[in-house]
Amino acid sequence: MRYLTAGESHGPELTGIIDGLPAGLPLSEDAISRQLFRRQQGYGRGGRMAFEQDKAQIVSGVRFGKTMGHPVALKMINRAYHKDKDNWPVVMSSVPVKDQIEKITLPRPGHADLVGVQKFRFDDIRPVIERSSARETAMRVACCAAARELLGFFGIQIGGHIIQIGESGYASWEAVRDTADPVISEGGNALSETADKSEVRCIDSGISEQMVAEIKKRRKDGSSLGGIYEIVVTGLPAGIGTYTQWDRKLEGLLSQAVMSTQAMKGVEVGIGFEAGKRHGRNVHDEITWEDDQYGRRTNRAGGLEGGITTGQPLIIRGVMKPIPTMLKPLQTVDIVSKESRETRYERSDVCALPRALVVVENVIAPVLANAFLEKYGGDSVGEISERYPARN
Amino acid sequence: MRYLTAGESHGPELTGIIDGLPAGLPLSEDAISRQLFRRQQGYGRGGRMAFEQDKAQIVSGVRFGKTMGHPVALKMINRAYHKDKDNWPVVMSSVPVKDQIEKITLPRPGHADLVGVQKFRFDDIRPVIERSSARETAMRVACCAAARELLGFFGIQIGGHIIQIGESGYASWEAVRDTADPVISEGGNALSETADKSEVRCIDSGISEQMVAEIKKRRKDGSSLGGIYEIVVTGLPAGIGTYTQWDRKLEGLLSQAVMSTQAMKGVEVGIGFEAGKRHGRNVHDEITWEDDQYGRRTNRAGGLEGGITTGQPLIIRGVMKPIPTMLKPLQTVDIVSKESRETRYERSDVCALPRALVVVENVIAPVLANAFLEKYGGDSVGEISERYPARN
Amino acid sequence: MRYLTAGESHGPELTGIIDGLPAGLPLSEDAISRQLFRRQQGYGRGGRMAFEQDKAQIVSGVRFGKTMGHPVALKMINRAYHKDKDNWPVVMSSVPVKDQIEKITLPRPGHADLVGVQKFRFDDIRPVIERSSARETAMRVACCAAARELLGFFGIQIGGHIIQIGESGYASWEAVRDTADPVISEGGNALSETADKSEVRCIDSGISEQMVAEIKKRRKDGSSLGGIYEIVVTGLPAGIGTYTQWDRKLEGLLSQAVMSTQAMKGVEVGIGFEAGKRHGRNVHDEITWEDDQYGRRTNRAGGLEGGITTGQPLIIRGVMKPIPTMLKPLQTVDIVSKESRETRYERSDVCALPRALVVVENVIAPVLANAFLEKYGGDSVGEISERYPARN
Amino acid sequence: MRYLTAGESHGPELTGIIDGLPAGLPLSEDAISRQLFRRQQGYGRGGRMAFEQDKAQIVSGVRFGKTMGHPVALKMINRAYHKDKDNWPVVMSSVPVKDQIEKITLPRPGHADLVGVQKFRFDDIRPVIERSSARETAMRVACCAAARELLGFFGIQIGGHIIQIGESGYASWEAVRDTADPVISEGGNALSETADKSEVRCIDSGISEQMVAEIKKRRKDGSSLGGIYEIVVTGLPAGIGTYTQWDRKLEGLLSQAVMSTQAMKGVEVGIGFEAGKRHGRNVHDEITWEDDQYGRRTNRAGGLEGGITTGQPLIIRGVMKPIPTMLKPLQTVDIVSKESRETRYERSDVCALPRALVVVENVIAPVLANAFLEKYGGDSVGEISERYPARN
Repeated sequence: MRYLTAGESHGPELTGIIDGLPAGLPLSEDAISRQLFRRQQGYGRGGRMAFEQDKAQIVSGVRFGKTMGHPVALKMINRAYHKDKDNWPVVMSSVPVKDQIEKITLPRPGHADLVGVQKFRFDDIRPVIERSSARETAMRVACCAAARELLGFFGIQIGGHIIQIGESGYASWEAVRDTADPVISEGGNALSETADKSEVRCIDSGISEQMVAEIKKRRKDGSSLGGIYEIVVTGLPAGIGTYTQWDRKLEGLLSQAVMSTQAMKGVEVGIGFEAGKRHGRNVHDEITWEDDQYGRRTNRAGGLEGGITTGQPLIIRGVMKPIPTMLKPLQTVDIVSKESRETRYERSDVCALPRALVVVENVIAPVLANAFLEKYGGDSVGEISERYPARN
Repeated sequence: MRYLTAGESHGPELTGIIDGLPAGLPLSEDAISRQLFRRQQGYGRGGRMAFEQDKAQIVSGVRFGKTMGHPVALKMINRAYHKDKDNWPVVMSSVPVKDQIEKITLPRPGHADLVGVQKFRFDDIRPVIERSSARETAMRVACCAAARELLGFFGIQIGGHIIQIGESGYASWEAVRDTADPVISEGGNALSETADKSEVRCIDSGISEQMVAEIKKRRKDGSSLGGIYEIVVTGLPAGIGTYTQWDRKLEGLLSQAVMSTQAMKGVEVGIGFEAGKRHGRNVHDEITWEDDQYGRRTNRAGGLEGGITTGQPLIIRGVMKPIPTMLKPLQTVDIVSKESRETRYERSDVCALPRALVVVENVIAPVLANAFLEKYGGDSVGEISERYPARN
Repeated sequence: MRYLTAGESHGPELTGIIDGLPAGLPLSEDAISRQLFRRQQGYGRGGRMAFEQDKAQIVSGVRFGKTMGHPVALKMINRAYHKDKDNWPVVMSSVPVKDQIEKITLPRPGHADLVGVQKFRFDDIRPVIERSSARETAMRVACCAAARELLGFFGIQIGGHIIQIGESGYASWEAVRDTADPVISEGGNALSETADKSEVRCIDSGISEQMVAEIKKRRKDGSSLGGIYEIVVTGLPAGIGTYTQWDRKLEGLLSQAVMSTQAMKGVEVGIGFEAGKRHGRNVHDEITWEDDQYGRRTNRAGGLEGGITTGQPLIIRGVMKPIPTMLKPLQTVDIVSKESRETRYERSDVCALPRALVVVENVIAPVLANAFLEKYGGDSVGEISERYPARN
Repeated sequence: MRYLTAGESHGPELTGIIDGLPAGLPLSEDAISRQLFRRQQGYGRGGRMAFEQDKAQIVSGVRFGKTMGHPVALKMINRAYHKDKDNWPVVMSSVPVKDQIEKITLPRPGHADLVGVQKFRFDDIRPVIERSSARETAMRVACCAAARELLGFFGIQIGGHIIQIGESGYASWEAVRDTADPVISEGGNALSETADKSEVRCIDSGISEQMVAEIKKRRKDGSSLGGIYEIVVTGLPAGIGTYTQWDRKLEGLLSQAVMSTQAMKGVEVGIGFEAGKRHGRNVHDEITWEDDQYGRRTNRAGGLEGGITTGQPLIIRGVMKPIPTMLKPLQTVDIVSKESRETRYERSDVCALPRALVVVENVIAPVLANAFLEKYGGDSVGEISERYPARN
């Protein structure tokens, strides 16, 4: 399974192609749009009042509600483009235009603005903004949601929740576990469903309130916030992934998926960075045999040992930096005049983390789906089910 | 550039092939063995007194001291195999043997032992141990050291140091910077050279002593330690890498390289997880123009914005878990009898971190070399130098 | 550079994403549609009188007429789908429908019908037909036409012509050369332009007439025809491609591109199969030095030696089998009842070769573009031009 | 499954790594060396009387006669290097040498000599000769022989025979079929075994004699010969491979494998180029249902329709050009002085085709093995056998 996305933020459409899904998988625009909807929800958005819901259209690859083993093409209409017909179709025109289009020449620190211009030798930052912005993650989520459906078909559920926003958060990994594990015991879906009830996707109501208060404070300050999230995947069989070659290890592939998502600055598995501070006896998970299967006394490894799933829940945590666009300006340099300048005032969200969580939940799905398919093979979910009975 | 490694810990040889190096690059066994030597140094090793130095042999791809643009094959003789001729050639025989070879049936928590057996349906854990162990990183380092030479040819230097072992370490990211940045200002090589003078590769002598003391303590306890390291790359041009497609972003590719290294549980770029706790004004790096080039007031981004280098030093930190093999046993299950058992006593190192640092320094080299070659192209270093003058 | 296509013949749209084009390349829908138009022209089509011209829309990746270094998304509206609103949106519905949709259960020999059903365990052949048909090549041409524009920017021109249809064709490779080489001396574009003037894309008017006559005859018979074409690429620099690793050799990559095109059964380079019948002195091309550059007395190698371009025109020939859909039926088996049956009457073209030629001309473009970029690197055509001056 | 080879003709060793073989596959050096032995046999070799047999050593990845799911490393000692200790270790030294080593400056037409120098900017042709020569195919065969063993385990047999050398050969495709099909009906192995009995690997004794006579004649003339071979694979299940995306079609992948082999100038499937000369009714294979399975009246498609296996024998034919090294010289140019010169006298084989056949037989094995594993998945042959019972 592999996928490519294309599209600029204010172009007419975002496009995605996901190739390698087996045939016979139930797949609907609703299932995809559900993830897109979740990606749009969350406290801390800026003031664009009536923003409309993203919808992905399945353009091909699905018939009568099921995949055909063909590549699946998805598209999302960019409403801004189509609403503001006097502006965007001109500014983002694929053909030369007569009008003088104002160039953006003030790179915003923390965005790809300056590096993009340095890379491509542009004299206008707009192309960089249009492709590097978080808008791209909408189509990435759409593509990956299809892989998530495949996992779900076989009982593999992805959940996620927020554990830190700025200074507000859990005291420790154990504190997270105490709150999250009872929910997770019902499956990964339960975790996301519970988190979705909080406007900051935090399942602890007390911490949730602190987070909201902190966001309000930073909005007033003209600053912004990032934070830390946790993803938990349940229902994974033991033994997928491999230790045999470096580029096939699940820790590596999952980290790539997470860290290639906009604004991510770190990722960890299980107790993660905490593992560097503990001594060994407090890190490794003793092995048990109960009910005719292997188990673990603890899951500090986060479900992965040596590039392979243990059958315990997979636990990944990541950090998102604060949104670089802020009300109060930062110092920058005009790329044409080379004069020192302040960034321009731009309306922006204060904290994108609750939404970014949904992105990361989805982007890890193709990695897991590929490892699953490598072991269980097959051209259709029917064929795979003979080898690995469907669980949903 | 791509590479594959092969080989078991106690087989006759480790093998590596690195494909895609341009022609004309000076490459010697000494340069590679220097990294292998560094990989073997460091406090906290177990008691194998007279272990010999690893040496990689260049089997092909290099003539008269320079690459030919061909794949480079490397091999490392496993001395244990050749020394203990009564044992290893039998135990790891590639052909059937008459002797009854004792099977290993007690999986060690924290290793790939159990998951490997579950994956491949083995009734003996030895094959898993033989390939998943850190021995594999010797050849991985050897392959990647070739890519590091390419970077070095163009003035790109990779350095690294240890910042935390167990409870001993720096108080904060700023504390690390205060100590490390003056060294880094001389280039990445200077950092590694300075770190190499410490037996735990920590450049702060006070913290270094604490680390050594903590390792001694844990050796006595029969436990083990991991820790946190920092890699810094200097001399990178701005504008390599890309934001245009998810699987080509440098943050993702670098994280994969780090996290696919044995025992790694987390990775972060720049201020990393700290970015989730700060508000935006304390995260982003303001842009300057001095001496006819762009600069930054700070480098909290760690040299990457949107998948692309900023021209500032690249800063990556990672965490290694404590060695799972410990003197005091853990609970496990016999894979044949399914009885509960204790892990067997095995002599082991207490802390592999100072050596693992060297591995990670090297494994990121091919990622950076590929991004560099994508921009500057070319079949020989001569051709590339016309476009990007060599700096070393 | 890489690309994926998606879409079914009678679905709403075909979709393509091409990733890895450098920035600054002039790219228009007209340039792409020109290839699509050429793909639709040619004698021997069936009776669908007023079929409309395919047009590809550039959905993203291009601004003001130039690429941005971003993935380029293309789409093509399937007119049949939108015209016959009572039929196709139901038959190819991505959601379940109430109507009973007739299943296709008679696999046509020579198509992927039966093997597709065996692979995916379908009980209906329609999904197979919808994706495996030559309709897919429309989007493939569109994607590859973008790569062809890149080649063209640097003076690399792809031409093609038909040399055999059924029993009508040139007597020998030398006879082809005598006719084609004077045209090719003006560049690859001249060859295609000349060929396009013939309704069967044969540049010899006498043979052209025979071909038309043969097609007429086979239409009457209820049979069909394939044939042989030749592609010639001019303006390639010497030294792109490589011999160093099997999967990077140009002969292999070009052959894959050709043979992965629908209905192709063979491919050859230079004198091709003739090389097996001659002895060595009549095969190899002696080397000369004239006007300060290397040359060849002959070009029997077809511009490739050892996986690398020689700087002589690249010559590839391929064979297309006759269209399997024919007026007179063939024996087949109903996939449900397993009864022996005759294929159903279907209106069809008699000979698709002149159009398939255009497909193959285009599909080799990304292979050559990748080899070119590997040597000349760069993120924008401006940057590349400093290393390899543009020639168009 | 993927593999890389490394090594120069006169370096100390050739190296190969094949990654992705499932665990539990019986694999021995004998099985691999059998293919290497076959690769060395055949009429038409030059005069090196007592050349020794190539042997591949399994360096890792196999224990007690079976794969472990790990990468398998192979090496072959280059005997020439080790025998002529005064020469090769100096000429091909990986470190700088004091002696003045004579440079090769006369490129041989038909080899990669000139293009390699143009690519890498060498002032000595030797590096090019050392890697681009057919010696590389020894390791390629060794790697691919492992994949062939996997196929064989599941009853998939690869056979091959020579059908044309220079002017000697079969009159037509049907003539080949009449002779070969009765042998093939016993399985692909039978074909190779029968062919191996002929010194030119031609199963028709009359044609065989003509071929030998023609080789003798060309040896006297100081010229050389190539020819045409046919590969037949039996035991393939229907439904592996795919039509869904261009780069996964079996025709394309198989053609790449064949055409990336040294000296190949063409490849065809089934009736191949003949398909362009026939009309449709004489090309397509009618479908039958007998003994509870689908069959075909004919197999003109050569076992592939739309990128997927039909379950009929896979038939591929390819052409090898005559060896470019000949007793009588060709015109060339000195790369240093640019003067016109004659190629140097070199002892050489007259016809390498019977040996090259063995190479091609093997190089297609990984392509088929990958398509097979994609459908039947699995980490060990035991696991795969549950889904697809082993047949050997």
